[in-house]
Amino acid sequence: MAKPVKRNVIMMVSDGFGPASETFARQYHSWKEGSPVNSIVFPLDKILVGQSRTQSSSSLITDSAAGATAFACGIKTFNGAIAVNPDKIPCGTVLESAKIHRHMKTGMVVKSRITHATPAAFSAHIGWRDWENAIAEQQLGYSPLGRTVDLMFGGGLCQFKSNKTEGSCRQDDKDLVQQAKFDFDWDTKTTRKEFDQLDENAKLPLLGLFANQHMNYAIDNDPSIEPSLDEMTEKALSILKKSSQNSKHGFFLMVEGSRIDMAGHINDPMAMYHEILEYQQTIKAVMKFIDQNPDTILISTSDHETGGLTVGRQVTKGYPRYEWDPEPLSRVKNSSEVLSWMWAKAIQDETDTKEYLLDTIIGQGLGLTDVSKLELARLWSWKNSRTDIEFFAIMLSDLVSRRAQIGWTTMGHTAVDVNLYAYGHQAELLRGSYENTDIGSFIVDYLKLDLDDITKRLLDLKALRS
Amino acid sequence: MAKPVKRNVIMMVSDGFGPASETFARQYHSWKEGSPVNSIVFPLDKILVGQSRTQSSSSLITDSAAGATAFACGIKTFNGAIAVNPDKIPCGTVLESAKIHRHMKTGMVVKSRITHATPAAFSAHIGWRDWENAIAEQQLGYSPLGRTVDLMFGGGLCQFKSNKTEGSCRQDDKDLVQQAKFDFDWDTKTTRKEFDQLDENAKLPLLGLFANQHMNYAIDNDPSIEPSLDEMTEKALSILKKSSQNSKHGFFLMVEGSRIDMAGHINDPMAMYHEILEYQQTIKAVMKFIDQNPDTILISTSDHETGGLTVGRQVTKGYPRYEWDPEPLSRVKNSSEVLSWMWAKAIQDETDTKEYLLDTIIGQGLGLTDVSKLELARLWSWKNSRTDIEFFAIMLSDLVSRRAQIGWTTMGHTAVDVNLYAYGHQAELLRGSYENTDIGSFIVDYLKLDLDDITKRLLDLKALRS
Ligand SMILES: [Zn+2]
Ligand SMILES: [Zn+2]
Repeated sequence: MAKPVKRNVIMMVSDGFGPASETFARQYHSWKEGSPVNSIVFPLDKILVGQSRTQSSSSLITDSAAGATAFACGIKTFNGAIAVNPDKIPCGTVLESAKIHRHMKTGMVVKSRITHATPAAFSAHIGWRDWENAIAEQQLGYSPLGRTVDLMFGGGLCQFKSNKTEGSCRQDDKDLVQQAKFDFDWDTKTTRKEFDQLDENAKLPLLGLFANQHMNYAIDNDPSIEPSLDEMTEKALSILKKSSQNSKHGFFLMVEGSRIDMAGHINDPMAMYHEILEYQQTIKAVMKFIDQNPDTILISTSDHETGGLTVGRQVTKGYPRYEWDPEPLSRVKNSSEVLSWMWAKAIQDETDTKEYLLDTIIGQGLGLTDVSKLELARLWSWKNSRTDIEFFAIMLSDLVSRRAQIGWTTMGHTAVDVNLYAYGHQAELLRGSYENTDIGSFIVDYLKLDLDDITKRLLDLKALRS
Repeated sequence: MAKPVKRNVIMMVSDGFGPASETFARQYHSWKEGSPVNSIVFPLDKILVGQSRTQSSSSLITDSAAGATAFACGIKTFNGAIAVNPDKIPCGTVLESAKIHRHMKTGMVVKSRITHATPAAFSAHIGWRDWENAIAEQQLGYSPLGRTVDLMFGGGLCQFKSNKTEGSCRQDDKDLVQQAKFDFDWDTKTTRKEFDQLDENAKLPLLGLFANQHMNYAIDNDPSIEPSLDEMTEKALSILKKSSQNSKHGFFLMVEGSRIDMAGHINDPMAMYHEILEYQQTIKAVMKFIDQNPDTILISTSDHETGGLTVGRQVTKGYPRYEWDPEPLSRVKNSSEVLSWMWAKAIQDETDTKEYLLDTIIGQGLGLTDVSKLELARLWSWKNSRTDIEFFAIMLSDLVSRRAQIGWTTMGHTAVDVNLYAYGHQAELLRGSYENTDIGSFIVDYLKLDLDDITKRLLDLKALRS
């Protein structure tokens, strides 16, 4: 076996981003910039190499847990599985092997809770994605393997706080922030100010959780409150580079554009557009890093498509014209999710007047002044419908999508093959159409990892402890 | 300028075939074959090189005419344009330059009328795609350039028959079949038997029109009546190869899977699946040809997506499961188009009973025994709705798609970037994301063509004649 050379892997996951998402965002962006036909391309367009086929072992349509396990372990598994195989046996991940066998620095940067499916599948093993309390513990090092992650940036502080603290999502009273400091020397940062103070010499292991739950959508975020995905990624890169500088070993960084998917679930075109734009900025920053650090490969792909987005929707009865209209989108100020929370709060506060709905939510929030009586009545009646707030958010999204002639077919995921992008060292080896599991296998080969050995260690140690 | 070497180009257009079409067809096929996850890939999956960005000069969503003109002339133009620029000035095409400058044999094989937008844009120049009577004349050689096509296989005989003949689509009484024989020595074949008798030594120019209008959908076709796309393509390849055998010059063949698009317009998943399967067979045959004739490149892409197909559709009110169901599709026996014609005929013959609708159209045709009273009432009421037959066909398609959880968002086209496939000599040069016009430019470079000179000839001669 050839001796491994120093290499870095940046694995980026654009959760829920399908082929139509790229076209939609590029066309809207070009329109907004007033650019002539075909003059704008996005950073991703410059590095397209192929596609990834995404179905899981349990369904023709994957979820993010099985999708991320395909990248992390190189195996097909069931929807909901966090780095376990179809028999619920833990499977070693590329991040773990990079740490244990290759002594690389390891990091994860996301916009969801850090305990959400995608980052979880690289750094924890459990039979169901919703058990995030346990995932948080494993990610810190309470695991048969010990600590395997050096840096985590994202949201989800609630999973690390005792249930005696406000806003906690834990079932127990463990204060994981304190425990992790004591047991593994984790440094924890939680504010924009602390983020800004971090430089390349930041001490590892480092836990930066800048939101209690998911981080804000880019469309809603006040940059003085939460850093963006590209800011977090640039900082992570500088820290990981510095910390591995005097070592024979490079780093493995997983970056997730987590909330493209969430915008898709709510069928919200503008929340999605701004998440995609932020992801493109991140890609651009990573490409620049690679230009300066050529022993690095960037792989970017999606776990699946979300929402059944199509760039063309028939809104009249007759035969449709071949067009869609970006203009109504340009008036949207906030995500449907935030606007629906505002409405829910108004209901709670008993300030839920038709004026507030019409002027503030629809008028200021969505930029719409032409809602019909029927549309308004549908929104109004949600209060009595006893359905979740998501269904109100979906109705808001639909007001906008309908006017733009943008289509959606589900609140869930779809099966379409997703685009595969790569840049840097040996990126050409990823050209073509692949199963999502092949991407995991590529990283194994690229870094000369041994996932079977990790799997054995996970099982042996489990056996020892029981 | 380097001396051109002998090369063949096979340009294939999968009209209306988007990224989701490939996934849908592959997943259905795998299910039908009872194959385990990820064991089946289609011929196209083996040769994916990138994507094509499809918008036209007049809209974010192209039609087939502007889409084909991008491939043929390498320019963006307006929807409806047949090889003319946005100012309606004719633009020289790759087929014409291949013939005139490179003395190559040229052919077109399609499943639509041969006068339909895609083949028209390679072989005619006119400001509006519907003027198929004039397109037919130009294709035969009644053009400033004279005859530039050597072989045409497809449908559309109606455009070549005098309006004194039954089934003609001409406004005039020109018998183009006779005229073309007299003026340009075109040999015309119109039956399966005549097709079967053609061998590699067939005399050129050769016009094979095996249907009066579009050729049958593969799902409906009786192979003893009409040849399939792969059969026509294989025969065209053998004839073009033989006829260019003793020449320094190769051939240019355009092949179109024309009716994938039409199935998309009717939102008919099974008509689309069978057209895709036939297209894959054709790709396989062309790849085999290239293995034996390595100085050949195959390029396959779509002009645009049709229907807004998504592989995942929410049919219940609550949060959806991540799945779709191929089973209901496997019971479909005919295209919705043919079934709706049967129903229209029953209405005309006054045999339009509820039993006929329920047992023959829905039961035998679609394989459905579980239609609800509401669904039946909707179908029944179409008779009085005064809408086109397409809207009845769409309703039939929807019965099936709904049960399979397959989504559609329009009867028209969408803007999603389409997959780009290539195989053979220099195929690697097409890797990445391109504008559709870049594909035309690639062919120009590959064959060392001069489209500007063709454009000049088109204009000079026009000036001379006026
Ligand atoms: Zn999701
Ligand atoms: Zn079409």
